[in-house]
Amino acid sequence: MATSSVQRVAVYPGTFDPLTNGHVDIIQRGALLFDRIVVTILNNPSKSPLFNVNERLEMARAVFKSQSNVEIDTFDGLLVEFVRRRKASVIVPGLRAISDFENEMQMALMNRRLHSDIETVFMMPAESYTYLSSRLVKEIFALGGSVRGLVPDLIESHLTAKATGNGGLNV
Amino acid sequence: MATSSVQRVAVYPGTFDPLTNGHVDIIQRGALLFDRIVVTILNNPSKSPLFNVNERLEMARAVFKSQSNVEIDTFDGLLVEFVRRRKASVIVPGLRAISDFENEMQMALMNRRLHSDIETVFMMPAESYTYLSSRLVKEIFALGGSVRGLVPDLIESHLTAKATGNGGLNV
Amino acid sequence: MATSSVQRVAVYPGTFDPLTNGHVDIIQRGALLFDRIVVTILNNPSKSPLFNVNERLEMARAVFKSQSNVEIDTFDGLLVEFVRRRKASVIVPGLRAISDFENEMQMALMNRRLHSDIETVFMMPAESYTYLSSRLVKEIFALGGSVRGLVPDLIESHLTAKATGNGGLNV
Amino acid sequence: MATSSVQRVAVYPGTFDPLTNGHVDIIQRGALLFDRIVVTILNNPSKSPLFNVNERLEMARAVFKSQSNVEIDTFDGLLVEFVRRRKASVIVPGLRAISDFENEMQMALMNRRLHSDIETVFMMPAESYTYLSSRLVKEIFALGGSVRGLVPDLIESHLTAKATGNGGLNV
Amino acid sequence: MATSSVQRVAVYPGTFDPLTNGHVDIIQRGALLFDRIVVTILNNPSKSPLFNVNERLEMARAVFKSQSNVEIDTFDGLLVEFVRRRKASVIVPGLRAISDFENEMQMALMNRRLHSDIETVFMMPAESYTYLSSRLVKEIFALGGSVRGLVPDLIESHLTAKATGNGGLNV
Amino acid sequence: MATSSVQRVAVYPGTFDPLTNGHVDIIQRGALLFDRIVVTILNNPSKSPLFNVNERLEMARAVFKSQSNVEIDTFDGLLVEFVRRRKASVIVPGLRAISDFENEMQMALMNRRLHSDIETVFMMPAESYTYLSSRLVKEIFALGGSVRGLVPDLIESHLTAKATGNGGLNV
Repeated sequence: MATSSVQRVAVYPGTFDPLTNGHVDIIQRGALLFDRIVVTILNNPSKSPLFNVNERLEMARAVFKSQSNVEIDTFDGLLVEFVRRRKASVIVPGLRAISDFENEMQMALMNRRLHSDIETVFMMPAESYTYLSSRLVKEIFALGGSVRGLVPDLIESHLTAKATGNGGLNV
Repeated sequence: MATSSVQRVAVYPGTFDPLTNGHVDIIQRGALLFDRIVVTILNNPSKSPLFNVNERLEMARAVFKSQSNVEIDTFDGLLVEFVRRRKASVIVPGLRAISDFENEMQMALMNRRLHSDIETVFMMPAESYTYLSSRLVKEIFALGGSVRGLVPDLIESHLTAKATGNGGLNV
Repeated sequence: MATSSVQRVAVYPGTFDPLTNGHVDIIQRGALLFDRIVVTILNNPSKSPLFNVNERLEMARAVFKSQSNVEIDTFDGLLVEFVRRRKASVIVPGLRAISDFENEMQMALMNRRLHSDIETVFMMPAESYTYLSSRLVKEIFALGGSVRGLVPDLIESHLTAKATGNGGLNV
Repeated sequence: MATSSVQRVAVYPGTFDPLTNGHVDIIQRGALLFDRIVVTILNNPSKSPLFNVNERLEMARAVFKSQSNVEIDTFDGLLVEFVRRRKASVIVPGLRAISDFENEMQMALMNRRLHSDIETVFMMPAESYTYLSSRLVKEIFALGGSVRGLVPDLIESHLTAKATGNGGLNV
Repeated sequence: MATSSVQRVAVYPGTFDPLTNGHVDIIQRGALLFDRIVVTILNNPSKSPLFNVNERLEMARAVFKSQSNVEIDTFDGLLVEFVRRRKASVIVPGLRAISDFENEMQMALMNRRLHSDIETVFMMPAESYTYLSSRLVKEIFALGGSVRGLVPDLIESHLTAKATGNGGLNV
Repeated sequence: MATSSVQRVAVYPGTFDPLTNGHVDIIQRGALLFDRIVVTILNNPSKSPLFNVNERLEMARAVFKSQSNVEIDTFDGLLVEFVRRRKASVIVPGLRAISDFENEMQMALMNRRLHSDIETVFMMPAESYTYLSSRLVKEIFALGGSVRGLVPDLIESHLTAKATGNGGLNV
């Protein structure tokens, strides 16, 4: 069978504050579908995230350290510019609910207008993650609920460290 | 940069009775995204389609004859079995409306359950095709409206030939 | 205040098998909003409607006989051709549910493509009619339930006459 | 703690052609929530169901034979009349998708109008059943796919017996 | 007929800032459906509510003082912990729109994951309250519109007292 | 043809921070459908808009200066009171997505309750504007992307002037 000479790189953008198992599921599916997937973390200091962008970067790198075609990066300008800079051609939006889909379709149409050669493809997480969001994870954790199984173990440890003021980030 | 040795083949299933410019748009986007895209036409004689499956097959082949990584085929069993037989790993559902998305997500979850290694990815047509469907094309044509720009020219000719009883299929 | 010389005519298309109080509500709102509203009944013998198109036409005329700017007509070709023939410029789709809205938006975009000078505007029935449809009226009536308040009294009488085989249409 | 003297009976209506594990999940949740749940099967010979209403009745009874507060019955008139006849006060609609929800809300508003003392409450199946429907089960089975885990074992046997013409119903 | 020894307690959580007639409608329907309904008010000082949690508590108690199986309480931790503490087994989410339903379904799936024996059931307000929300009530009142019929009279008085700085809470 | 003596005035409310080509499209469609359309800009200083209400007023007046039946105004109380004061009978909500539609339907039902003689009608922008919003325009502009074609040229100039601190408003 002929080898393909085109490298297909996808970008998976998000806030990842923190990374959940729903994100991990999509990233792993994307890593099978594309030659490389670049997870890119929005640098949004004005929104006062729980973890700053460097913490999120290091945690995500730790989670995916053994997957060679998953890269972690950050961005703070136009997403389509980031996509071009990384020589990617595909955006994979994080998507949970039907109502998300409509918003993401609007973003995708706008991104296509800004750069017509960038395609957006929607992937579907395992149904057990359809109710999962970073916001919900933070809320449950803050209220004393268990987030085991909702986030990677490493993220759970960092949530605990952050909560106990014991937050030195030795990933 | 290293060449990839994995061939990524996507399947685009549908009734295509007839093929519209919305379908063509998705197929061309898919042909850029994957190494090969197999358009597969549902053989559904019990639904009394306007064009039988052979006519639809020949017309689609004529439309895509110059695109080497677009193949046309037919199926009549379980879609996931077809996908495996063709050594594909991806299903691209034809999708127009938000409500479609929900049905297609259910199909995708069911297909994942039947074969967990088959992924469904949703692509988005140009917004000028969001109102387009084979059913609407047939209805407009039957009522004497113009379908120019809604279907490939070749399909328009065949619609006319079919209507005038002049339907020899010399694609 | 200056007088306007433009006559604004709206078309309200549907099957009206039978006319419900939800339809009546929209027609009366439309009659206030436009100079004239033309209710047009789809002639669809192949769908075996409960009332044939002439029965539906006469019943609707009887219901609106005292409203001078409501006209009743029938059509069986492309709706936009009917709209032009009647020198109307607006289509008011019958709309009940959110999911209806999406279908109707697709139809509206298609109609705009067929004739760019025809506008579709969506009106909203009283909330007490949001659960009402001709199909539901027929189903409830067939199962022996009361449809009082769901359809005009005259329509209720005709449903009863039709059911008892006593269906001479002396509107 | 005081004992309650009100018996709360819920009705779970459907076609159940055939009963799926999604239905079973809702019925078991309902049996915990209400004093009694009456599963009632729509007698719809005109729709040519795969299993006739007696077969569906006997199969459902066999599946729930050990659950004392689950009853199986059939109906063919207005659902609200059945509900009253069975001295129930609640309808639990079978619900899978968001779009289902809108239809069911319309039915519920209509049923409330027909009998204001009958309440409709929506329950949620396990997320692993959100993609499951009787129609999909029949389609997969007809195309040779496995329905194991999608329906109770007893139903799977009857599907097989029906397919092989070996359909003596010795539940 | 046998008496049931199981007490079924439902929890109806919300912000209730302020309680509207839509909330009252659901609470009264819930009070018929369950042995007891516990209305629980989210203590959310950081959101700067119009009425503080004690004001909301006292007002709701005044509104329901004559209904013996409606209790009013407050919570500020995980809702499912509150539900268990109150020996309830059911959550009734406040629900107005279709889009609400999707969010609430996600919450319900998450809550089921946190405590699998807690069921969420969705009830439906009268259709005349589908457009009603606490936010809209506050907005209309602040802009000088009448909220009569949208909230209980007692709440209307407290809105007026609050606006005129005459807010001594002598419920 | 008879002349109509009723002046039909529609109000198109919004924040217009800034006016986009999607707004312009709806306003021009409305100007054909009604005798006069009053674009009314919400005065919302507490939301810290990019352009203050006077800037938005002057820009909109400049864009529509040659259209005699388009007026620009501002409001800050109840919209329905503004509508009555302007002797209008129709509200045209700005509408982009399906989910918008549900919110707007709720607002429309509430407005109808406040003044039963004010009708809300939904119009549909060209499909190329379905992904367009003021928020997105501001975001793209702030991140250095081009907004040409998304807003009128005059608005683009003012965005640039505002960004370069060169914001004297000599429309």
